Amino acid sequence: MTYIKAGYKRYKITIEYNGSLFYGWQRQRQTPTVQAEIEDALLTIVREKVAVHAAGRTDAGVHAYAQVAHFDVPHELHCDHTMLGINYFLKGKGAVVTSIQETLPDFHARFSALSRSYNYFILNRRPASVLRYEHAWHIMRPLNHELMHEAAQLLVGHHDFSAFRDAECQADNPKRRLDVFNITKEGDIITAYLKSRAFLHHQVRIMMGTLKWVGHERIKPSGVLDILASGKRKYAGQTAPSHALFFLGADYPEKYNECTTTSGTLLA
Amino acid sequence: MTYIKAGYKRYKITIEYNGSLFYGWQRQRQTPTVQAEIEDALLTIVREKVAVHAAGRTDAGVHAYAQVAHFDVPHELHCDHTMLGINYFLKGKGAVVTSIQETLPDFHARFSALSRSYNYFILNRRPASVLRYEHAWHIMRPLNHELMHEAAQLLVGHHDFSAFRDAECQADNPKRRLDVFNITKEGDIITAYLKSRAFLHHQVRIMMGTLKWVGHERIKPSGVLDILASGKRKYAGQTAPSHALFFLGADYPEKYNECTTTSGTLLA
Repeated sequence: MTYIKAGYKRYKITIEYNGSLFYGWQRQRQTPTVQAEIEDALLTIVREKVAVHAAGRTDAGVHAYAQVAHFDVPHELHCDHTMLGINYFLKGKGAVVTSIQETLPDFHARFSALSRSYNYFILNRRPASVLRYEHAWHIMRPLNHELMHEAAQLLVGHHDFSAFRDAECQADNPKRRLDVFNITKEGDIITAYLKSRAFLHHQVRIMMGTLKWVGHERIKPSGVLDILASGKRKYAGQTAPSHALFFLGADYPEKYNECTTTSGTLLA
Repeated sequence: MTYIKAGYKRYKITIEYNGSLFYGWQRQRQTPTVQAEIEDALLTIVREKVAVHAAGRTDAGVHAYAQVAHFDVPHELHCDHTMLGINYFLKGKGAVVTSIQETLPDFHARFSALSRSYNYFILNRRPASVLRYEHAWHIMRPLNHELMHEAAQLLVGHHDFSAFRDAECQADNPKRRLDVFNITKEGDIITAYLKSRAFLHHQVRIMMGTLKWVGHERIKPSGVLDILASGKRKYAGQTAPSHALFFLGADYPEKYNECTTTSGTLLA
């Protein structure tokens, strides 16, 4: 829990971004990141050095429809004007703020989140795509999406996901409860939808890389349980490419949605 | 009906393209069009001047997931190799062939079609989008999509759609049977799905421009019936922008789908 300074107000901000134009969320030296762009915009607009904390620190290449973050400022903001100001600053950079609202002082974009959800898209056909190439993993050989869904169901629940996390994952506890992991197909697009309170580093992408084996019938759906039980990253599949992963949003307790000041995503 | 020359074989070809990179389907002087690119590719590969006829001659800016067309060649083609050849030729141009198959000599991509279907997308929120700006009409003021759906249902059926066609529409008969016109909303995206044996020139886009009035409660859903009855283009709404329109595909009688040679969209 980060404490709020006396006299400060806390704001919740929602951001959409095209991951292919950033080196991920987190500020780094000399590379464009979403956090750095938003913080720089706020420095210009609010004239304060503001730290912005996100629900999910997405990797380079990962897109977001609704990344949620929070920041504190020592005075009241006009949410609408601030949103327009940041968006003017962000123009052409591949990110856009879709809402800003005042929230409660104990709100934390990362720690208050009840769940996070993601989509992962696979284009399953031989020719490449001219409409979806930036947003889907192109796999030429046919995948059996029903077997993939079957395997995904075996991963739902409370497990030690050590086998499905990156070697560099910094989480103390490798246990997570995966609430939803659905695989559906429409036309030549296979869509994964995942929901969990929290994910480990690269968890979604390593699970997708492993489900590719299932889809190609290289392992049985139950094979993912052996990999899970092993607890060893080396037994799981590849880390699927980042450009097909979309952070959809985070859910919070109802009390944080009842805000004094709001800037809806629509004009009133 | 176009007749096939003796000794020729007819092929059905399916093409995906990004409309923003073409001046529509139909060949024109000195501007890139999809038809010209495909015909030029076939000239190089088949070494014959080949005319390619499409199910729907989309306007500049309109995208296609599965445009269907046919062409004749005086010898048998290896469908897979031809597809790869055309796609090599099209690389970087914004179009890709997703299947080629031999079909019956009386197949005509335009005249044999039982139905054509389209999607039209609206982004309904104040901020622009960095992920969907190329594929959705950005309307800031809130739209009531339920009223839009209600109005759309009044347009379903067999009507004289004169009020909803472009002044330059060349169809002799302005009567069409609109089979499906659904409006749904998910998040801030409003999706229209339309299905009809055939559409008039700009019909989808003029209907969408008119439904915008309904969504903004400028006219009642029943107002579209008055516009329909007037038969006058001037009473209908604007022609909605082309970049949000997607040609999804065309359906044909079953007999044309049973082919001797096939090049599936997937590797076997």
